[in-house]
Amino acid sequence: MIKALIYKNRSYRRFHQDQKVTMETLEELVDLARHSACGANLQSLKYILSCEANTNALIFKRLGWAAYLKDWKGPAEGEQPAAYIVLLGDTTIHTNFFCDHGIACQSMLLGAVEKGLGGCILASINRKGLQKDLAIGQHFEILLVLALGHPKETVQL
Amino acid sequence: MIKALIYKNRSYRRFHQDQKVTMETLEELVDLARHSACGANLQSLKYILSCEANTNALIFKRLGWAAYLKDWKGPAEGEQPAAYIVLLGDTTIHTNFFCDHGIACQSMLLGAVEKGLGGCILASINRKGLQKDLAIGQHFEILLVLALGHPKETVQL
Repeated sequence: MIKALIYKNRSYRRFHQDQKVTMETLEELVDLARHSACGANLQSLKYILSCEANTNALIFKRLGWAAYLKDWKGPAEGEQPAAYIVLLGDTTIHTNFFCDHGIACQSMLLGAVEKGLGGCILASINRKGLQKDLAIGQHFEILLVLALGHPKETVQL
Repeated sequence: MIKALIYKNRSYRRFHQDQKVTMETLEELVDLARHSACGANLQSLKYILSCEANTNALIFKRLGWAAYLKDWKGPAEGEQPAAYIVLLGDTTIHTNFFCDHGIACQSMLLGAVEKGLGGCILASINRKGLQKDLAIGQHFEILLVLALGHPKETVQL
């Protein structure tokens, strides 16, 4: 059963933007990350949840999409993610976040796939811009952004 | 169901050493990692699988266990892991492994838990020693060691 989830969990980049993802769903996903292993059990990851159009737009404009597809600027309006989870490292706890954000993302993505959602891990981020736009404190390091929604793509392995 | 697996997936450090883990099982776990996301889809992780006593012993002696427990040198003979997966980064592909090893470990651990196994991600490794003992090529970077077996611990959340 975990195999089916992992095989189904592809990197989705186009979504039914009008199909909402609730805050409750995002909190359930973070709960999965919270209960996953982390380096030295320091629990230094923090999360910003967004499922509201204005905040989503702020996050979207700071993301780079699919570096290999030079001619593709990312999903068009109407196909953009319906929600985001921004993964932060709290440098007041530690400045080495090991591969904790990888572990956390995988837990959250598998949870998302189980709920019929899909997502994509984004590391190409205008971090300074996003830090300013979301008023993220300077003691947080933006590690990754998880884009989420109801996939509008059929992926074939 | 993913929630139950994630909650059950704790860091186990003592095992029924005499209860074998087969090579086939390890290959199934690596298959889960292979089908998980990785940075820029570069697939730069490689794996060494060990479920045989002699190789296990070589790996075991290069590991540091539970830094917080100063008086505990790691599991005693009879309670040591029955198998290991050594995660390597292939520097001929890329020298930045992002958090790929975190994603891969979480996939493999969830697969292990589903099979009634348990494990622990170890980052405290005498890397030079292990590289020599296992004759690992210099173009590989040892990222993590995943210790696996039938847990001899009951973890309470």
